[in-house]
Amino acid sequence: MNLPANVVCTNDADRQLKEILDAHEGNVFVLVDDNTEPYCLPMLPSLLGRRAIVVRIKSGEEHKNINTLQEIWTQMCNGGGDRKSLFINLGGGVIGDMGGLAASLFKRGIKFVNVPTTLLAQVDASCGGKLAVDFNGLKNEIGLFRNPDKVIICTEFLKTLPKRQLISGMAEIAKHAILSGEEYFHELSNFNPDKPNWQVLSALVEKSVMIKNEFAGADPTEKGVRKMLNLGHTIGHAIESYSFTTGKEPLLHGEAVAVGLVCEIFLSNKLLKFPIQKMMNIVQYLSEMFTPYKFGYDQYDALIALMNHDKKNSGGEISFSLMSDFGQYHYDQHCTTDDIYQALSFYQQMNL
Amino acid sequence: MNLPANVVCTNDADRQLKEILDAHEGNVFVLVDDNTEPYCLPMLPSLLGRRAIVVRIKSGEEHKNINTLQEIWTQMCNGGGDRKSLFINLGGGVIGDMGGLAASLFKRGIKFVNVPTTLLAQVDASCGGKLAVDFNGLKNEIGLFRNPDKVIICTEFLKTLPKRQLISGMAEIAKHAILSGEEYFHELSNFNPDKPNWQVLSALVEKSVMIKNEFAGADPTEKGVRKMLNLGHTIGHAIESYSFTTGKEPLLHGEAVAVGLVCEIFLSNKLLKFPIQKMMNIVQYLSEMFTPYKFGYDQYDALIALMNHDKKNSGGEISFSLMSDFGQYHYDQHCTTDDIYQALSFYQQMNL
Repeated sequence: MNLPANVVCTNDADRQLKEILDAHEGNVFVLVDDNTEPYCLPMLPSLLGRRAIVVRIKSGEEHKNINTLQEIWTQMCNGGGDRKSLFINLGGGVIGDMGGLAASLFKRGIKFVNVPTTLLAQVDASCGGKLAVDFNGLKNEIGLFRNPDKVIICTEFLKTLPKRQLISGMAEIAKHAILSGEEYFHELSNFNPDKPNWQVLSALVEKSVMIKNEFAGADPTEKGVRKMLNLGHTIGHAIESYSFTTGKEPLLHGEAVAVGLVCEIFLSNKLLKFPIQKMMNIVQYLSEMFTPYKFGYDQYDALIALMNHDKKNSGGEISFSLMSDFGQYHYDQHCTTDDIYQALSFYQQMNL
Repeated sequence: MNLPANVVCTNDADRQLKEILDAHEGNVFVLVDDNTEPYCLPMLPSLLGRRAIVVRIKSGEEHKNINTLQEIWTQMCNGGGDRKSLFINLGGGVIGDMGGLAASLFKRGIKFVNVPTTLLAQVDASCGGKLAVDFNGLKNEIGLFRNPDKVIICTEFLKTLPKRQLISGMAEIAKHAILSGEEYFHELSNFNPDKPNWQVLSALVEKSVMIKNEFAGADPTEKGVRKMLNLGHTIGHAIESYSFTTGKEPLLHGEAVAVGLVCEIFLSNKLLKFPIQKMMNIVQYLSEMFTPYKFGYDQYDALIALMNHDKKNSGGEISFSLMSDFGQYHYDQHCTTDDIYQALSFYQQMNL
């Protein structure tokens, strides 16, 4: 397995960025939010030297929408952005997805570099080129496929994260482990986010990026095998969207994916005979790592309505990506509404 | 010269469309405006047979913006659009540019077919894949490059057009003639829009599409030779944007391009010695075809400010695509502000 050609893993993000800036002629924009401006931007002094124009947005998935895109474009227009401008996304998944889309559409597309600062963004959102904003209450409804010109992955940024953010990212690593094989899952289980060994985490991140690249690289526009990266996401996205409507603090993406993984590994067992003991190992790992998410039986239909809008669907059926064992994957799987009820109910039983 | 592989010229658009619909499995949307719904949609009965979902927007460049995009997406969501949906753009340049962008971003991209119904859209906007909406007072500021899956060009639609619309399209054909050679310019001069010979016009359209394809096909993302298709458009776009701010009825795109062509052929003479007699032939043709556009010396600076935002610019200089003779082209040309003043002044002198 290899890293994608446009991805570099480093412990000195500023040095990597400086090389890019030195080779670039146009002006430079850097997209930050309330968190990455104070905590991460100071770790990139070469942007100051280059007089990069700072584009600021509010942090959080609730701002990943077309209004914020327009705010970004207005700031780019006002800052004299032209076709030779370079756009740098400094932040988590929201910054990467939305900033990448903003850059790809500004004057029909300018170059952009992703510097992911959360664990989730480092392992998931930063390579593979799925750019999007939410629309009409649906996640990532509006977007396109385009690879960043460069992705700089540096685990130094992870030291700035609150523990909740760090743990959220573990859900995507767990997904990659399930897709890849049991051995990597054991490696992952030995990592303790309460006392992080950063060198071990760096290695996990690099391996996770390679696994993602195996699937995404073989199928950039998600016609086939790339759909496996949606493991845990059919139910996970519905849970995540739903958590935005309850008035309580919404889930982080990884927290919702953890719920989705439990449910979809259950479906994998029910439909494809994923071994029950291995299923229980995964469930135990995730339930020790994540706080249980509470929802009632009366919310099942609302969740299924959200799943019906999933982009992977076609012909009115909900599509799942499921496993028959670690490393044994099957996409375009269809479940009955009853199956999904049972999966949600299983999650509740395991976690209450 | 050839037609692009995805373009078909026909006198039976419905038959061509029916073939596509018969081969398509998902649901079908058709984008129309106040004009194309009553005048053009009835010419495509196979859409009725297929129960295509009609997406309606208001006509006119002033609606080519992000708000209208959102209206389109909302109608697609409500109509059950998924990744296998097909989107058909039935209309002029605004419908083609905006509908193509809407389709390219909906769920990260669905297939779309352009059925251009204006002369301008048939010769210019319908192949070559420049999709966009206006933003922040600037034309086509937000968009991307993507070719329609199919373009169906049928001059029957042109019979539904008001004369002003038909004439507007002649400006782009004139541009193609200047880029191509003097012979095609003479052919064009013999066409009389007051008593249109539709067969002659069909041949002109087909030739124009081939010329555009020569430039756009060789350089899809406009790094080099494709820039020549912007002949007349640096000043033309500024005039067009400006005409939206005056409170009077705005110019049609082709009308603004006609102004731009006069000015930029003047610049071609001044900077690259475009032969003066040939310049006068072009100016005479355009000034007989188009009503003069009135503006004052005190508006020059506002026009130049608009040119400064042109996407082709870089490093703070305004870029022009100019000619040293029919068929002899030169892109990335730079003019002084004085040159531009003189060009605008030349237009006024020729037309007042």
